[in-house]
Amino acid sequence: MTNTYRTEADLLGERQVPADAYYGVHTLRAWENFQISGTPISSWPELIIALASVKQAAAEANAELGLLPANLRDAILAACHDVREGMLHDQFIVDTIQGGAGTSTNMNANEVICNRALEHMGHGKGEYRFLHPNEHVNMAQSTNDVYPTALRIATYFAIEHLLEAMEVLRAAFERKSTEFSGLLKLGRTQLQDAVPMTLGQEFSTYAVMLEEDIARLRETALLIREINLGATAIGTGITAHPDYAPKALSALRRITGIDLCLAPNLVEATQDCGAFVQISGVLKRIAVKLSKTCNDLRLLSSGPRAGFGEINLPPMQAGSSIMPGKVNPVIPEVVNQIAFEVFGNDTTITFAAEAGQLQLNAFEPVIAASLLRSFRHLNNGCLTLAHKCVDGITANPERLRETIERSIALVTALNPVIGYKNATSVAAEAHARGTTIREVVLARGLMTAEALDEALRPETLIRPRADKLGGKP
Amino acid sequence: MTNTYRTEADLLGERQVPADAYYGVHTLRAWENFQISGTPISSWPELIIALASVKQAAAEANAELGLLPANLRDAILAACHDVREGMLHDQFIVDTIQGGAGTSTNMNANEVICNRALEHMGHGKGEYRFLHPNEHVNMAQSTNDVYPTALRIATYFAIEHLLEAMEVLRAAFERKSTEFSGLLKLGRTQLQDAVPMTLGQEFSTYAVMLEEDIARLRETALLIREINLGATAIGTGITAHPDYAPKALSALRRITGIDLCLAPNLVEATQDCGAFVQISGVLKRIAVKLSKTCNDLRLLSSGPRAGFGEINLPPMQAGSSIMPGKVNPVIPEVVNQIAFEVFGNDTTITFAAEAGQLQLNAFEPVIAASLLRSFRHLNNGCLTLAHKCVDGITANPERLRETIERSIALVTALNPVIGYKNATSVAAEAHARGTTIREVVLARGLMTAEALDEALRPETLIRPRADKLGGKP
Amino acid sequence: MTNTYRTEADLLGERQVPADAYYGVHTLRAWENFQISGTPISSWPELIIALASVKQAAAEANAELGLLPANLRDAILAACHDVREGMLHDQFIVDTIQGGAGTSTNMNANEVICNRALEHMGHGKGEYRFLHPNEHVNMAQSTNDVYPTALRIATYFAIEHLLEAMEVLRAAFERKSTEFSGLLKLGRTQLQDAVPMTLGQEFSTYAVMLEEDIARLRETALLIREINLGATAIGTGITAHPDYAPKALSALRRITGIDLCLAPNLVEATQDCGAFVQISGVLKRIAVKLSKTCNDLRLLSSGPRAGFGEINLPPMQAGSSIMPGKVNPVIPEVVNQIAFEVFGNDTTITFAAEAGQLQLNAFEPVIAASLLRSFRHLNNGCLTLAHKCVDGITANPERLRETIERSIALVTALNPVIGYKNATSVAAEAHARGTTIREVVLARGLMTAEALDEALRPETLIRPRADKLGGKP
Amino acid sequence: MTNTYRTEADLLGERQVPADAYYGVHTLRAWENFQISGTPISSWPELIIALASVKQAAAEANAELGLLPANLRDAILAACHDVREGMLHDQFIVDTIQGGAGTSTNMNANEVICNRALEHMGHGKGEYRFLHPNEHVNMAQSTNDVYPTALRIATYFAIEHLLEAMEVLRAAFERKSTEFSGLLKLGRTQLQDAVPMTLGQEFSTYAVMLEEDIARLRETALLIREINLGATAIGTGITAHPDYAPKALSALRRITGIDLCLAPNLVEATQDCGAFVQISGVLKRIAVKLSKTCNDLRLLSSGPRAGFGEINLPPMQAGSSIMPGKVNPVIPEVVNQIAFEVFGNDTTITFAAEAGQLQLNAFEPVIAASLLRSFRHLNNGCLTLAHKCVDGITANPERLRETIERSIALVTALNPVIGYKNATSVAAEAHARGTTIREVVLARGLMTAEALDEALRPETLIRPRADKLGGKP
Repeated sequence: MTNTYRTEADLLGERQVPADAYYGVHTLRAWENFQISGTPISSWPELIIALASVKQAAAEANAELGLLPANLRDAILAACHDVREGMLHDQFIVDTIQGGAGTSTNMNANEVICNRALEHMGHGKGEYRFLHPNEHVNMAQSTNDVYPTALRIATYFAIEHLLEAMEVLRAAFERKSTEFSGLLKLGRTQLQDAVPMTLGQEFSTYAVMLEEDIARLRETALLIREINLGATAIGTGITAHPDYAPKALSALRRITGIDLCLAPNLVEATQDCGAFVQISGVLKRIAVKLSKTCNDLRLLSSGPRAGFGEINLPPMQAGSSIMPGKVNPVIPEVVNQIAFEVFGNDTTITFAAEAGQLQLNAFEPVIAASLLRSFRHLNNGCLTLAHKCVDGITANPERLRETIERSIALVTALNPVIGYKNATSVAAEAHARGTTIREVVLARGLMTAEALDEALRPETLIRPRADKLGGKP
Repeated sequence: MTNTYRTEADLLGERQVPADAYYGVHTLRAWENFQISGTPISSWPELIIALASVKQAAAEANAELGLLPANLRDAILAACHDVREGMLHDQFIVDTIQGGAGTSTNMNANEVICNRALEHMGHGKGEYRFLHPNEHVNMAQSTNDVYPTALRIATYFAIEHLLEAMEVLRAAFERKSTEFSGLLKLGRTQLQDAVPMTLGQEFSTYAVMLEEDIARLRETALLIREINLGATAIGTGITAHPDYAPKALSALRRITGIDLCLAPNLVEATQDCGAFVQISGVLKRIAVKLSKTCNDLRLLSSGPRAGFGEINLPPMQAGSSIMPGKVNPVIPEVVNQIAFEVFGNDTTITFAAEAGQLQLNAFEPVIAASLLRSFRHLNNGCLTLAHKCVDGITANPERLRETIERSIALVTALNPVIGYKNATSVAAEAHARGTTIREVVLARGLMTAEALDEALRPETLIRPRADKLGGKP
Repeated sequence: MTNTYRTEADLLGERQVPADAYYGVHTLRAWENFQISGTPISSWPELIIALASVKQAAAEANAELGLLPANLRDAILAACHDVREGMLHDQFIVDTIQGGAGTSTNMNANEVICNRALEHMGHGKGEYRFLHPNEHVNMAQSTNDVYPTALRIATYFAIEHLLEAMEVLRAAFERKSTEFSGLLKLGRTQLQDAVPMTLGQEFSTYAVMLEEDIARLRETALLIREINLGATAIGTGITAHPDYAPKALSALRRITGIDLCLAPNLVEATQDCGAFVQISGVLKRIAVKLSKTCNDLRLLSSGPRAGFGEINLPPMQAGSSIMPGKVNPVIPEVVNQIAFEVFGNDTTITFAAEAGQLQLNAFEPVIAASLLRSFRHLNNGCLTLAHKCVDGITANPERLRETIERSIALVTALNPVIGYKNATSVAAEAHARGTTIREVVLARGLMTAEALDEALRPETLIRPRADKLGGKP
Repeated sequence: MTNTYRTEADLLGERQVPADAYYGVHTLRAWENFQISGTPISSWPELIIALASVKQAAAEANAELGLLPANLRDAILAACHDVREGMLHDQFIVDTIQGGAGTSTNMNANEVICNRALEHMGHGKGEYRFLHPNEHVNMAQSTNDVYPTALRIATYFAIEHLLEAMEVLRAAFERKSTEFSGLLKLGRTQLQDAVPMTLGQEFSTYAVMLEEDIARLRETALLIREINLGATAIGTGITAHPDYAPKALSALRRITGIDLCLAPNLVEATQDCGAFVQISGVLKRIAVKLSKTCNDLRLLSSGPRAGFGEINLPPMQAGSSIMPGKVNPVIPEVVNQIAFEVFGNDTTITFAAEAGQLQLNAFEPVIAASLLRSFRHLNNGCLTLAHKCVDGITANPERLRETIERSIALVTALNPVIGYKNATSVAAEAHARGTTIREVVLARGLMTAEALDEALRPETLIRPRADKLGGKP
């Protein structure tokens, strides 16, 4: 901190701002007002960078329209560059959880960029008569179009990162699916013994689930491209030049590299949080599958001796402070917990989105925090699961083989031959006497030994087979 | 009910089934086991019809493959026809909330169709030696492919119905938007006076929101087209002929008129509830917007004398048992409540989907009940809101006009001329002295009366204006 | 239905009401307005009975105060008696999901009671000049005190019923705990083998959980006793006699047998839904435990041959339409689903409670529907689980014994003797070599065979033991 | 950081630990494994302090039992003292979101305390042959009893802090209630004009709600006092001396000053998260009310000119980057967002609690993080709302008075005199003609002017009045 201060003023009066701070009086008041989570907005660098991108695009558009002098534009652009490079992140001090629809975040950006630009112009911080945070940096803008636009850009990049992490995990599962393709085992439905499959088939489902979820998540990127820049306060574009919106859009597309487009109805777009709700819903879908997958991994690796014991997760740390040698499935467990967080964040986002009123949703800051947290944790969860768990999974072939050898559920394969009713009776007897399907069928003379052996070969049971059914070829 | 019974048997032994019941012993046990909600599956006729469609498609495919004799096929088809016509809905008695991944629902369908088919064949109910519920009606099928397939078909039709209802509501809002397009009013952000707009713009947002949500919901119909018929027990297709899946699909496409397709990985598809989670997420998005819209309608119509009083909702019933003449916004209120239910159903669906294990999700029945309820209530809510509320909304033009006349927020329009800092000071003085922006600006000599009048004309404030800003044309 | 009608009128004009209907024009309009769920309020008889109890108490109090003539009182009381006996439930036709804070439900009750009372007086239905639904049946009342009061009474009885059902389930688990008290098995943490316990200890936890939850639920009955009768419209008691509230309370206590009390601040009590949120939270707690318990039962009974196989659930129905002889844990599964519904209902209730505004919460109908549904399903779930599952559970003693015999986790018992570091090394070797702890410890000469046998006797490992530790007695 | 390292080993092999780190190899691996949220457990100092308290109590008990030498005990106690004083918080580096049921947190505590104790003993860090993290610091303990116990202690203190903050807010509302007790206004139900009350009555409800919630929260402190210390791994107390549990409890009661008690069934207590679910439910109740209260404050202060305008919130910062002079209700808005977070955290906690399996819930870390975050944000929210909003609220008496003067709803007061039907007609006419109740009643000759004036005096309408009703005194 500092011992020297400069004086700034707003509608509430004068305040002392640390002389070396790039932020100003609005930021200071917001920081004081919102002492809630202790997590500053700088924790979300993607959001800060997106804000600076928007400010840069606005300055370019206003200058092109002759509304912002070239020297002011250049200074703003230089400052935006510095922010986007991460040089000033520590100046974004406002709490993530804040009242005011993001106004404090936008004010924080305006002030930091303004003071940095003033420096570039050779002026001192706070000399707003040369360049003003609201009149110049915020020209033709309102929090109500800047903040949602920045949040959408940040979300877009978050989607791209998560897609990469999901692909890493998907590929890891796919490799295991191939590795385990020759290992026969019993499938289970409702935790009860069902019919045969391969461990490769089982692992393929995890890869395919991710593949589908990747496709669904990619689609959401299209939803989030639509921005409301130029809407200003409520979507009517007050204070903005009619040509501002398309020019700013064009600049922002170039700066971000995203194929952004303008919402057709800016009044609607300014109050609408539907895309965030839907994206959170897709993240929830992803989390549901990840959690289910981790539940399966924990179940299949249960043991080592009194559980299913079909696979082994790589040991990552001692599992117990009291039980020596115990190794626990800590990586799947942490991913489960991430999923539970994502479900909670979705609840928060739903409440916040529903609470919008009239021309604005005042609760976007908590939507931003919850959504970006879901993205970050899912991203870390996917990479952690891939590298620290899936890659090191091994199988226990003997245990897998055992599960089918004496399985009663194999009788399902005989349905087309001996009928459901007979098969039910065979299964019941085998279960009651602790014996095998084979033995009961033979004892009852329902099939010949050869026919039975052929019908029960597990290798033939893991895909549809015409020759067991009769019927037309 | 009946006094006479027939005897049926399953793996647990014999039971007396009412002689005139089309359902059989499996249904009877399930009915006894699940005395939970009192709501039978017949409450969802779309699901019953979908089940019969699947059974019909399977019979056609198996007959074509030479596995099901033509006379049995014909009898099954006739029975499926009867079910699809709604003739036997009262025989679907199993509770909506049931254990067993839908097995009881599938068994109920097998038995009803079987016994009806037996009648068509001239046999008595329960004479399963001629036609068997599991061997013939369920041939090449498992609950684990039939039930999800039927649920997807039912969901598809639910989507189509909801789309129609949403379009009705959208059109109602659009008509009001046009009707109110000439009515100027003050916009509000964070419930505080903001800048001018028209009531038509305000209502257009409700129409546009629905238009977007219609597009998003339509996309989900694509997700739900993908079925796992032919997967049988766990996706490996055990007991099914290799050509069964494509043939059954083809038949089912014809029967339902839906452009269904087969999931590329049936093992994955059999255990995956992701599409239901995502669709519920989209319904939640729709519900968020509907609830926000209803909140707005209630707010704008608050009064009649001590509230906003900008619009009037049509009176639908006396509002109070004690306050004579009170009329309440009961229609928006009921839609709010529907939204809250949809949010709750989404929580239920998330839990159920996450709880799937290994090769199956055993909790699809509660997913089905929750999802179909969300659809039905949203459908009824949209139509109710359109016909019993939106269509009859009227505006109070004087009240609307009043809101801008003395508005302090008009000063925003002067930003480009007098600057943010001056404007702040003007606003503060107008607020403190209870006077108008106009008066303060003139008193301070900041602008001429003519320039001011032009700048503050509300009609010019509801869209971007170059001529107020200067700058390049 | 009927072909004849009588004419009634309200502030919207005249309407034809079926001549034999006990309900009137207000009910008719509400029924028309709310075509949402198809579930009428008569589905909750406890709520109908509670409403009639309130109406009776009000009539008694008003008559005592000289405001309601004795003959009118007597007629109202007779009608309330009929409603409470269930004679007129079919007249409560308004949809469960309704706008208007319960006004339609209250109006429905006023009209049915009024018309029934008119009959008792020898008049025809609709002859309101002799007895009026609002002036007499609703005297000194508002929906805003009647409806919450009735809902609290209904909730109270729902609590009592659920407590009984929980006790049935608790006792069932306790009996099993005793039955299984001698069966040693391996405990599991994080699904990994941990240290020994008995199956009786395992089942005792389910009984104890329920015992605790019973205590917590019983506490909520105290919260719900507090009513706001006498508050009328907003809590100020407008239209009510100052002595009305205590007299009505006293009558209602007698009628219901519940130790009701009056909220100290009626304005607050009229708008506050906190008790419902908290009770739903306690139901959620109960559902969490029930679901966890059912997850455990499904896990412990997984198999029969490829799972844990430690216990057997009684077979209740054929488990599969395709896999003969398969028996699934359908009863625990249905209880899981009930839990998921309770979680969803809690979300709905939270949204509805949060949406209250100023002097009233307009969304109590959906709170009522969700809360009463949670109670009913939990009630049915507990009884179903007790009678159709827990009572019939059997153990597989050999399998249980096997789980400890070769367990590596037994090494934990040696910590105090050989230290955590040594023990870790022993466990690792036993795991790697597929051998037992005993063998490795002896091979390394860490303990004598006798000491080891004594230390590893499972019977001694299921409770704290001083003699293994040394230390002071 | 450091350039020098020491070598430590665990069951996975050797690792280099920074030489100056108090944590060891287990912590290092956990830190590497869980790179999820970036928030270390040190963010919850109350949890760290609670852990050190448990470790201290265990050391005291074990020493008393003769199992831990006095010099080791003294060193551990000194180290625990240092941790509790906050000297070593930066050594608790494990991520808040972690797999393993809290094992990594417990290991982190064991290692930091051990190495600090080694220093006190004059040894170097890592010289575990003198004092071992697991054998001595963790003696007779398991994560599975230490972690839940510490979390309960931390929760207890969080409850106490929140109670204080709520009392501050309650008192602020009560002061305003007194200040506003003479200001008459119109009450509103369903946002429609209802009957008169005072602004003081309105504010009293906020105070009373908090008073009730304080009582409910205080009750939860009793639930959380029950701990499972001595349960060790699964509740059977393996490795613990039979007298350990009572002695450790006694020490822990002294150290924490909390009236802790031991759970009657330690096996149950070790797996049960019910208390956390219930407490989160009570926090949700509190959040529901806070959010409703903030919604009311935002509504009542809406304007300044086009809203309700009944009260003024103190301006805390400029409300808009574009609309000069706009002041927004940012403090209530941030409290709304805190409530939405609490609702989300409750969802997370419910999922995590439901996911427990058999003898343990592996997901307590995310329960801890979510619960403690709810407490912290609610705490900050209450204080912020009190100091930065409620304390500075002022009323607009003229506006309040206006709301009743022409109110139609006043007719309610005439019900007992002219009847509901007449009153309805009067209200309708007044509404249609834009006139007052008084004028219509007089024009119709329904009452004399004197009787009417007396009946409609608002001052007499804010509580029950016998003299308006007739009836017995």
